[in-house]
Amino acid sequence: MNHPDPATGPVLLTDRDPGGVVRLTLNRPAQRNALSEDLLQALKTTLTELAADPAVRVLLLTGAGPAFCAGHDLKELRALPDEAAAGALFGLCGEVMLALRRFPHPVIAQVHGVATAAGCQLVASCDMAIASDHARFATPGVNIGLFCSTPAVALTRNVAYKHAMEMLFTGDLIDAATAHRFGLVNRVVPTGELDAATNALAAQIASRPPAVLSLGKAAVQAQIGLNEAAAYADMSATMAKNLLMAEAAEGIDAFLAKRPPNWPAA
Amino acid sequence: MNHPDPATGPVLLTDRDPGGVVRLTLNRPAQRNALSEDLLQALKTTLTELAADPAVRVLLLTGAGPAFCAGHDLKELRALPDEAAAGALFGLCGEVMLALRRFPHPVIAQVHGVATAAGCQLVASCDMAIASDHARFATPGVNIGLFCSTPAVALTRNVAYKHAMEMLFTGDLIDAATAHRFGLVNRVVPTGELDAATNALAAQIASRPPAVLSLGKAAVQAQIGLNEAAAYADMSATMAKNLLMAEAAEGIDAFLAKRPPNWPAA
Amino acid sequence: MNHPDPATGPVLLTDRDPGGVVRLTLNRPAQRNALSEDLLQALKTTLTELAADPAVRVLLLTGAGPAFCAGHDLKELRALPDEAAAGALFGLCGEVMLALRRFPHPVIAQVHGVATAAGCQLVASCDMAIASDHARFATPGVNIGLFCSTPAVALTRNVAYKHAMEMLFTGDLIDAATAHRFGLVNRVVPTGELDAATNALAAQIASRPPAVLSLGKAAVQAQIGLNEAAAYADMSATMAKNLLMAEAAEGIDAFLAKRPPNWPAA
Repeated sequence: MNHPDPATGPVLLTDRDPGGVVRLTLNRPAQRNALSEDLLQALKTTLTELAADPAVRVLLLTGAGPAFCAGHDLKELRALPDEAAAGALFGLCGEVMLALRRFPHPVIAQVHGVATAAGCQLVASCDMAIASDHARFATPGVNIGLFCSTPAVALTRNVAYKHAMEMLFTGDLIDAATAHRFGLVNRVVPTGELDAATNALAAQIASRPPAVLSLGKAAVQAQIGLNEAAAYADMSATMAKNLLMAEAAEGIDAFLAKRPPNWPAA
Repeated sequence: MNHPDPATGPVLLTDRDPGGVVRLTLNRPAQRNALSEDLLQALKTTLTELAADPAVRVLLLTGAGPAFCAGHDLKELRALPDEAAAGALFGLCGEVMLALRRFPHPVIAQVHGVATAAGCQLVASCDMAIASDHARFATPGVNIGLFCSTPAVALTRNVAYKHAMEMLFTGDLIDAATAHRFGLVNRVVPTGELDAATNALAAQIASRPPAVLSLGKAAVQAQIGLNEAAAYADMSATMAKNLLMAEAAEGIDAFLAKRPPNWPAA
Repeated sequence: MNHPDPATGPVLLTDRDPGGVVRLTLNRPAQRNALSEDLLQALKTTLTELAADPAVRVLLLTGAGPAFCAGHDLKELRALPDEAAAGALFGLCGEVMLALRRFPHPVIAQVHGVATAAGCQLVASCDMAIASDHARFATPGVNIGLFCSTPAVALTRNVAYKHAMEMLFTGDLIDAATAHRFGLVNRVVPTGELDAATNALAAQIASRPPAVLSLGKAAVQAQIGLNEAAAYADMSATMAKNLLMAEAAEGIDAFLAKRPPNWPAA
């Protein structure tokens, strides 16, 4: 286990604003926010707590220091005693990635620097991503003899086959514009505007009824991989349930009356 | 039930040309072509009839008035008595979307204006789409407390994950160029050229043997979601069947003889 | 069966370099490298042999003469006696395509000219593709009454739905820039730089430990189509196995020591 660096504090910082936007900051700047076991455990625990917290509306994920996240902590990987211990660590990492996908509210990555290996996987596991024009992305495991097999799970569900294979087989860094073209990030903004852009997007989303966002996020995840007819059967039931919620009643009535909605208390 | 507006006529217009191109026009212009139950029923009935009509070769879908389609009819939604009635209406809408995907001939959306919510889903459910540079697209259910869960089925099968999530969570309109970048539309043309571009594409496709287009459309749909080996097994059998058709014999012979094909009567 | 043209030699050429890069050249230039049964058999046999050859690290696929590959040999198709024989030929073609996807090392298409029908499918079946700015791509079966149903399997697993349908229904050639936008090729370079670009990419990839590339390629293929949780379970086990390999030990130790890796003998 790594222990918090007294100079920088806990490995994961949690900041909340009154509007329900929670910002998680990977906080191992001297290690380029490498995902040590204690950071992964902190992410898992925190995501579990926040998923149950009724005040949360939107989650932001960012990193302290120059990098977004450099992936696993390689010293720690090399110190693992056996394959079972390695499997447990990679399994924990997979749990964190799935916790982002299943998080009951929208999750936005704010990527200001390098996001590599499991760091790139974090970006791919978020629902949206805004990058600064200095951000760069790679799955460079081939360079160290450890193929990015788990990052490939998220990457191949975000970008086209040939884009994923090029990243995985070359390990090369791609710039923010290329990541944008691949669909790995939604927007690229100048570094000086990154905080403002992410906060504005989070505030916009957080202004909508959280019960509706949660229903919607779960709905999208649930229909992935179903055949289309089965997906429509499930989603028609979800829409019907949603329509009977107080939020839809107020939202539609306000729209028809051309007035702003007065959302029910969450 | 809405009733046809005497000033505008039936909620769905069907126009045929001698070449087998059928143009369906959503015709509730004053309601921005909102998909009322009677319009959905008209679409379902008409698609069923056209699917069995041997004269049909290509289907075009467009809308009357300034909008392409604004999604469900919100007044009607609010008047539904209970969840069962809502489920039935959304189920009907899903049937219409699946009928477009399963329609035995190519389906092209011609999008001249705003396509939102189930209107955006219509575009995503067509095989191809041509947009004018004034077209705009959104899944804005979050703005009225009714998440676009059914549109998400079609959207996530057309565009990358992060593009879909941004549209679904923000509800923002995207312009035609962005829709083109996302892969939601095939081409963007100036408004004044939209009719001509769509008609030219339809005529080009309609000039090919309809039995081959029908076989091909069904083939593509059938292999989606299969693992690749199973897909090849099915499609190899389809190719073999196709090769034995008179259309392939004539098409290949004409190609080898460097003459235009003389397609057998459909 | 076609027999080798005495002027051009065997229908498939195999060239190896000392670094483990194997270049396969479709060699029926006068027939635009059409995939005759003997060429398909040669591909199947050669891919099987190379898959078992420990010296192989990267596979390149290219074509002799002006075209990359024009698809099936149409004269041969027309001479097939019955549907069973046709099914066998298309089945053989599918086996070749799957052999590229399952090939235990990275496969790169080098596309200098026209790649149509099963030729376009070859490109889609490779892991990466570099095209010259003169390359063009199509699935033009509709023009000869033989829908590109088997190419659709690979195409729909490479590009967005509407891009695939436009190619399949129109049969039109797309240029290299459009193929790049669709994600069908990774890079487009001037014709004069195509060999150098492909060789450089192959050499870069071949410099990495082949056991790791093989493990990675198999991993990516294995998790396609799985639900995400199952994919993570499988890939976490793969990562753990990879971490215990000598290649990862050396790669990580070298990285941490800021020295070049000294890969174990393959």
